[in-house]
Amino acid sequence: MVDIYVLPLKYKEFKKIINFMIRGLHVETKTILIKNAIIIGDEIKKGSLITENDKISEIDYSNSSLNHADEVIDAEGKVLSPGLVNTHTHLSMSLMRGLADDMPLDTWLNDHIWPVEANLDGEHCYAGAMLACAEMIRSGTTCFNDMYFFMDHVADAADKAGIRGTLSHGMIDLGDEEKRKAEFKETQRIIDKCHETADGRIKVAFGPHSPYTCSRELLEGVRKEADKQGLRIHIHVSETQKEVEDVMEASGKRPFEYLDEIGLLGSDVLAAHAVWLDEDEMDIIKERGVALSHNPASNMKLASGVSPVSKLLEKGICMSLGTDGAASNNNLDLLEEMKLAALLQKVTTLDPTAMPAQKVFDMATRGGAAALGLEDEIGTIEVGKKADLILVDMKSSSLTPLRNPISHLVYSANGADVDTVICNGEMLMKNRELLTINEVEVISRAEEASEDLLSKL
Amino acid sequence: MVDIYVLPLKYKEFKKIINFMIRGLHVETKTILIKNAIIIGDEIKKGSLITENDKISEIDYSNSSLNHADEVIDAEGKVLSPGLVNTHTHLSMSLMRGLADDMPLDTWLNDHIWPVEANLDGEHCYAGAMLACAEMIRSGTTCFNDMYFFMDHVADAADKAGIRGTLSHGMIDLGDEEKRKAEFKETQRIIDKCHETADGRIKVAFGPHSPYTCSRELLEGVRKEADKQGLRIHIHVSETQKEVEDVMEASGKRPFEYLDEIGLLGSDVLAAHAVWLDEDEMDIIKERGVALSHNPASNMKLASGVSPVSKLLEKGICMSLGTDGAASNNNLDLLEEMKLAALLQKVTTLDPTAMPAQKVFDMATRGGAAALGLEDEIGTIEVGKKADLILVDMKSSSLTPLRNPISHLVYSANGADVDTVICNGEMLMKNRELLTINEVEVISRAEEASEDLLSKL
Ligand SMILES: [Zn+2]
Ligand SMILES: [Zn+2]
Repeated sequence: MVDIYVLPLKYKEFKKIINFMIRGLHVETKTILIKNAIIIGDEIKKGSLITENDKISEIDYSNSSLNHADEVIDAEGKVLSPGLVNTHTHLSMSLMRGLADDMPLDTWLNDHIWPVEANLDGEHCYAGAMLACAEMIRSGTTCFNDMYFFMDHVADAADKAGIRGTLSHGMIDLGDEEKRKAEFKETQRIIDKCHETADGRIKVAFGPHSPYTCSRELLEGVRKEADKQGLRIHIHVSETQKEVEDVMEASGKRPFEYLDEIGLLGSDVLAAHAVWLDEDEMDIIKERGVALSHNPASNMKLASGVSPVSKLLEKGICMSLGTDGAASNNNLDLLEEMKLAALLQKVTTLDPTAMPAQKVFDMATRGGAAALGLEDEIGTIEVGKKADLILVDMKSSSLTPLRNPISHLVYSANGADVDTVICNGEMLMKNRELLTINEVEVISRAEEASEDLLSKL
Repeated sequence: MVDIYVLPLKYKEFKKIINFMIRGLHVETKTILIKNAIIIGDEIKKGSLITENDKISEIDYSNSSLNHADEVIDAEGKVLSPGLVNTHTHLSMSLMRGLADDMPLDTWLNDHIWPVEANLDGEHCYAGAMLACAEMIRSGTTCFNDMYFFMDHVADAADKAGIRGTLSHGMIDLGDEEKRKAEFKETQRIIDKCHETADGRIKVAFGPHSPYTCSRELLEGVRKEADKQGLRIHIHVSETQKEVEDVMEASGKRPFEYLDEIGLLGSDVLAAHAVWLDEDEMDIIKERGVALSHNPASNMKLASGVSPVSKLLEKGICMSLGTDGAASNNNLDLLEEMKLAALLQKVTTLDPTAMPAQKVFDMATRGGAAALGLEDEIGTIEVGKKADLILVDMKSSSLTPLRNPISHLVYSANGADVDTVICNGEMLMKNRELLTINEVEVISRAEEASEDLLSKL
């Protein structure tokens, strides 16, 4: 009997609490209304969009019902695109932008990059990462995948900047057991400190540098730990012809075959570059569900070669786009990278229909999201997805006339055409003004950090 | 005896007149002082520069003496570069930007470009040229080489915009004698109306379209008239493999051999594209002093092929850079074109030292000047040369740290980093504000012209 009275009471209590919570939430709810935008959704159509806290809550193509929000943006003449996803970069290397160009990879690494990196500390890496965040936000990137050192400092920069990122400590053991232990220890430190921080914007992955700088033991250990902890893997594979030869000499197998034998490959692996591949390797990549990051600017500038992206797309492999670090690009502009990716495939295959604009745009958005295992959260404009959005201003002489927004984004625009950037429902840039970053200070700190590093050579 | 008295009198008279003229000139003299710029001159050094009317009158690296001018620009943190020279483009084709991409050349021309061009009139061409001028000025181009139709309307646009240009009516006869006569008539009309107008900023050249669209008679007539009138020649040669085959089938010779046989080639000829060349042709180009315009974006996007630029540079051939029209690029940004040119050679030759930054920068400046026969007037920052100058703002997150300005211009910057543009001593853009062009109106007129053309299909 008692229960009969108790239950309704409990229900009332419950309802009261729920209402209180809803009111409480309502006070906390932050909404942004973007009106009159050309929305790149399932279709490309003019409409309005509302974000609620970190998510897209409503899309309306009728151009009527949506009116109220904490912040209203009139996006007349602007295209609303998913934020771009840069799936392979090294933020802090922005400190080495323009330090050394036009030289063989060996000279570049041995005489310029590595001597500078030998003196890197956390503060340098923070300064470089903040500079990179400013540049990425300015050019429409809302999510990046980074591998480098002092990654807690990089996480700190990304947290402050408001951008989304997956970070990995770059592990290199060159067969040395002590070094290997230290790399796992540092990786675990970064995981424990940074994974799923900044409202979930920051995640941590394992970052074994490559099959030619990591021992078999390291790679096996990474697979084991990644499985145990449910974390992803970010690795460089087959960037240069030379490293393919080196791996073949050491293991008797081509790099992706070797990695497959070890059991490293899986749908939680993102491999950067993937320039030198044979047919069997492409099949392995497809079979294991490995995602690739194509880095055309870096591959061209370092003369590494041309990844067979058209073929990889044909096989249905998950393809994404990355700038690599600013030291070998020399910028982090994904709009420019899209153009390079399309143009490079066309001229290499002598086929103008190769890599059409839509395909390369997909690589820079939904492809990037999928490559990072974030396809349910970002990469497209859909209700319920995270509000990672950019507005690109099409009212400029270089983007007139406006026929096909995707063509303009890929072939005509560059990062400077990005007008407004929202990540996780937060405005990071509005009308080209950075809102989370004091850019003057960030530039001067980066310049100082770079000078400090050069003074130590 | 009389003479003794007369002479001093005459001398006094003369001096009075001279002084009067100097005072008169002084009133007309317009000077601009650019202070604290990183000047890309013989060396790259911080200093000041003064322009007087249309010319560079003084350069001072001591940072002291120069103080007065009608207009003073503090260029702290900015690089002062020669204005960029775009040696192959079709301004009015900006109306067809993004109209059709990712398709075979035949389809693109037959089904999209030519049907639109069939309805072009002078007003369309003016609207498209004005749009292109706005885009070129914004991205640091001060001189262009154009071949298209209704060129008096293009001249009108360039005159108003304040930019420098060499114009040619695109001549095509396809062997038809009536058409040939009409083409010479139209060319002569443009020469008579436009050559050496706009304070000498606008010149006219002969524009035989290509060896596969022009008859031998037309090409021979062009050479004769060019010699007679002292005008230059602008022609497309060997853009695609197919046209090389067509010329070989028709003439039994490769295109440059055929043109040489006709006697068309000389140091007054600028050939665009020059993608498919054999060794003998390269030697002919060198021997005849023909200048080339390399158009990497267009060659990549249309999948035409890769010009052997490194080899051509090695042979000492005069190399310059062009964007081609916006319909096949899809912008007119020479800073982006520089990066493409460097990266494409590196990856094609698999040599990272190929096409270093300085070489490609030279192509876009002094090389372009030489290719247009303007090497005594523009292309470098020197006292006595025309004041065609651009300031590029290096205080941005994407151009930090600043180590090597040439590297930044080629690899990191894009057109949007150009801050101020001076052509022939006139300010065309200051702090990214266009001074000679009403951009809002130009954009809307271009959009209308493009819509009008599409409505006629
Ligand atoms: Zn990398
Ligand atoms: Zn052309």
